[in-house]
Amino acid sequence: MTAEALRAVDDLRVQMEEMGRAARGAPAVLAQTSPQSKNRALRAAAAALRDRQGEILAANDQDMAAATTKGLSPALLDRLKLTPERIDSMAKGLEDIADFPDPIGRELEAWERPNGLRITRVSVPLGVIGIIYESRPNVTADAGALCLKSGNAAILRGGSESARSSAAILACLRDGLAAADLPVAALQRPPSQDRAAVGILLGMSETVDVIIPRGGRGLIERIRNESKVPVMSHLDGLCHTYVHQDADPQMARDIVVNAKMRRTGICGATETLLVDEAIHASLLPSLLRDLVDADCEIRGDAQVVACAEAENLPVQAATAADWDTEYLAPILSVRVVKDIHAAIDHINRHGSHHTEAIITRDQRAADRFQEAVDAGIVMHNTSTQYADGGEFGMGAEIGISTGKLHARGPVGADQLTSYKYLVRGQGQVRP
Amino acid sequence: MTAEALRAVDDLRVQMEEMGRAARGAPAVLAQTSPQSKNRALRAAAAALRDRQGEILAANDQDMAAATTKGLSPALLDRLKLTPERIDSMAKGLEDIADFPDPIGRELEAWERPNGLRITRVSVPLGVIGIIYESRPNVTADAGALCLKSGNAAILRGGSESARSSAAILACLRDGLAAADLPVAALQRPPSQDRAAVGILLGMSETVDVIIPRGGRGLIERIRNESKVPVMSHLDGLCHTYVHQDADPQMARDIVVNAKMRRTGICGATETLLVDEAIHASLLPSLLRDLVDADCEIRGDAQVVACAEAENLPVQAATAADWDTEYLAPILSVRVVKDIHAAIDHINRHGSHHTEAIITRDQRAADRFQEAVDAGIVMHNTSTQYADGGEFGMGAEIGISTGKLHARGPVGADQLTSYKYLVRGQGQVRP
Repeated sequence: MTAEALRAVDDLRVQMEEMGRAARGAPAVLAQTSPQSKNRALRAAAAALRDRQGEILAANDQDMAAATTKGLSPALLDRLKLTPERIDSMAKGLEDIADFPDPIGRELEAWERPNGLRITRVSVPLGVIGIIYESRPNVTADAGALCLKSGNAAILRGGSESARSSAAILACLRDGLAAADLPVAALQRPPSQDRAAVGILLGMSETVDVIIPRGGRGLIERIRNESKVPVMSHLDGLCHTYVHQDADPQMARDIVVNAKMRRTGICGATETLLVDEAIHASLLPSLLRDLVDADCEIRGDAQVVACAEAENLPVQAATAADWDTEYLAPILSVRVVKDIHAAIDHINRHGSHHTEAIITRDQRAADRFQEAVDAGIVMHNTSTQYADGGEFGMGAEIGISTGKLHARGPVGADQLTSYKYLVRGQGQVRP
Repeated sequence: MTAEALRAVDDLRVQMEEMGRAARGAPAVLAQTSPQSKNRALRAAAAALRDRQGEILAANDQDMAAATTKGLSPALLDRLKLTPERIDSMAKGLEDIADFPDPIGRELEAWERPNGLRITRVSVPLGVIGIIYESRPNVTADAGALCLKSGNAAILRGGSESARSSAAILACLRDGLAAADLPVAALQRPPSQDRAAVGILLGMSETVDVIIPRGGRGLIERIRNESKVPVMSHLDGLCHTYVHQDADPQMARDIVVNAKMRRTGICGATETLLVDEAIHASLLPSLLRDLVDADCEIRGDAQVVACAEAENLPVQAATAADWDTEYLAPILSVRVVKDIHAAIDHINRHGSHHTEAIITRDQRAADRFQEAVDAGIVMHNTSTQYADGGEFGMGAEIGISTGKLHARGPVGADQLTSYKYLVRGQGQVRP
């Protein structure tokens, strides 16, 4: 680096640390504020998103133009694109979060000790949350609102492609904070899109309590390796659906097509189908045909390839890499497994601990599967596409945690909290 | 490093990774085992500790001899020393843990969605836990038993000084596992005391789910900085007791002396006393005399020094460093604060988020303090020495977590768990 570049990074570090200190003070204010005033801020932010729609769309147009020039893929461009409908849906999301019960100050447990000490466990904010994400500008609204609802401060570092859009959205959220007389330092973004900002943020263990990365495996692994701040993992999902020998055939076909094809780009989409050997001959032909008819590409093991070829269906032979690949695309790897043990073993080896499903009428097999599979969400007779905080009734979510510490599965406002114990005595001293 | 030393580290790495893979398989077995068989293992381990007492004492004699030669301090030698009574108390600890309710497979929440999906949240083990601790050999028994009770595998890396004692204790725990037909790989220790083992363990993010360090700030900060595995922080405590202007004077005197002097070496001991300016003239003389009579050294601010000198009591002037020092010794820093806001501000700046207390008859002041102080445990009218899992009624504990993620406050068997969501459908597909 040149001396000038080094100086620029130093300046950025000073600004980021300043930002961290400012953020640090906000959770104490938010934790003691009434639920009503946080909700007023959220509703005012929603109104600002609608009022300032023109401004947001103009900023997004600039982002889109730059991204097009840079040659971003159509899929990425689609993620980046904002429309009046998308802005309205962000605003509605904020209003939904406002309507949810307040996650802070809840009495989680209470008991009394024989010596008369009364102990209560109550929910508190985590503190300052650093959110690092890629191109979707709506993450700015969703994540910012969830942090605010849960009394946390957030430093939101979105991808460079969406920088102008995110800044415009953040301005609306801060309008909301100001309208409710809450500290605007609760929601901030780094002063520049310099990539060095990410490294600096990951080192701010004095002021930032947790980092939540949203994005591809590469981004998340880099963050995990570099961060001095604890990271809540949100890896995307390598989800499996296992069709047990006692599955209802029609239910299996409906669920598998939905689990794979409803939306292929979300983390709860099934990527690998496991079919029990005992029913593969009877079920696989119709199952593969349904998938091919839905425009799904099949990558199968030898038995699957043989079956597909016999049915005159297009198929590729799966390679070892396929069992570890999250396609996020209309592609499904398909494997025949000897029995439920082989299915569980395959999943625990290749899965990402996100969401796994069994289709069966056999309750004992379902129980065994749900007990033995090591994942945040284990489903029976339904589609992995239900892996979603909204579908769980938890409201908006920041994502699905694939780690085991703190929160596992959907992470909504309730999961962005910690707790403390209040101990109330009448002068007790410890013998 | 010489080529030979490098080869030794490589060999150790291979052995440690082998150990990690073996440990990895254990939680799945333990999670599916009955509570009875885990408890049988714990009781058999307690019996083995008593049966093999001679062997454990002989190993401890060797550790003590080596430590004496190395010139360890009397305090460290006392921590290291085992006696028949201490071994019996370890065994009783294991039996107490066996008697506690099983933390695994508990239904934590259950609800049904409008579409008929039934969702249950159940507790599961965390997986493989790496415990890194210093000289107390009893941590081997306590931490190993808590991990077993909660269905986790543990890799126990104690300090070199206690290596022979820890090995003898671990052998008893493994006797217990074998007696109950459970995998002995659930409880392991590194094959050598080479310090490189710690670094290797901190890098085993594929097989180890969480690291729990027990020890001084230096050890813990090094681990936090180096670890690729998430760390559950157990820093020792810089705890405060604040005597509010409306405190009952006799209660304040009793609590302060207990909070500081009952045992000075534990993390819940008060290290700094804050006294409200409004009562310092009336209360401080008797309070300081009580402390001095109990052989406590006082380090005070200007007002405290003036008061002590007027009373002819020994006192030192506190330096800025005193407000950030955890003495773990019969020394107390004492400061006069203007009001409750100044007290809260001092605590949030200098505290370690462990345990803080207010003494007052004013309920509103107590509420304000308990709400605004950022710590795992916030007490009213009682002694900070009650900061202990056993005193909370939670049974044995690994320590008091000072982090906000996952578990905060006392960490017992319940806190060594994660959860998963079970979703039960009847064929639902997502629209």
